[in-house]
Amino acid sequence: MFRLHPQLEKDTIKLGCFDLCQMLLMNDANYPWFVLVPQRGDISEIYQLEEQDQHKLMRESSHLASALARGFKADKINIAALGNVVPQLHIHHVVRYRNDPVWPSPVWGRLPAMPYTDDALTDMVETLKPLLDGQVRFTR
Amino acid sequence: MFRLHPQLEKDTIKLGCFDLCQMLLMNDANYPWFVLVPQRGDISEIYQLEEQDQHKLMRESSHLASALARGFKADKINIAALGNVVPQLHIHHVVRYRNDPVWPSPVWGRLPAMPYTDDALTDMVETLKPLLDGQVRFTR
Repeated sequence: MFRLHPQLEKDTIKLGCFDLCQMLLMNDANYPWFVLVPQRGDISEIYQLEEQDQHKLMRESSHLASALARGFKADKINIAALGNVVPQLHIHHVVRYRNDPVWPSPVWGRLPAMPYTDDALTDMVETLKPLLDGQVRFTR
Repeated sequence: MFRLHPQLEKDTIKLGCFDLCQMLLMNDANYPWFVLVPQRGDISEIYQLEEQDQHKLMRESSHLASALARGFKADKINIAALGNVVPQLHIHHVVRYRNDPVWPSPVWGRLPAMPYTDDALTDMVETLKPLLDGQVRFTR
């Protein structure tokens, strides 16, 4: 049975679902930062997913990364499955710019999270919807 | 045409090849740290690979991660495609332990690299060979 880890509940805003993964927005407006969480119970590593789910994850991750690169004119997309703190498998997708505040370092542990304002969150969702149309069922 | 980026040539030791990816060892004995590089020209993001290659990358990455988790009794495998410094697509696979020197932080930019001694490198290769038998053509 799948249930989102309480720390991910706390740190993110649920935007919607791909077929396999929940799509979450990290509540940190320093960077456009998204998290995919495969809706499968008790998995902490990608290789623990069934092969079919691994391929589905690859498709959803690539779809998201490509949409973000295009829609946000990213210089780079950083993708990572770390999980040293939250064991539930979750895959970060972070839009990076050469002039963002911590480039070229990875984002983890660098800046205090800057929560979204209501307006900024509404803007973010409105930006994402056309980019992911037909792939993500938005719940916001 | 594929050619390994000079910075990866400098920072790593080539161990061998999967079908799609070169398998490199980061020359940093602080952690068992491996890098997969798909042998395709001019690619900086996973989504830029053909779909078939994306699935092949997923299989090779999962095979490697599973072998490392088992063979090194890892507490966690950290997998990441960052590329803010070296643009050629390369995917880190780092064996992590709860008692390693920077846990639970990600490894990038934390400790100065500690090059392998000849003996430690030989031991590493001998440890890996049976774990990846039939999947990697070792060149060491």
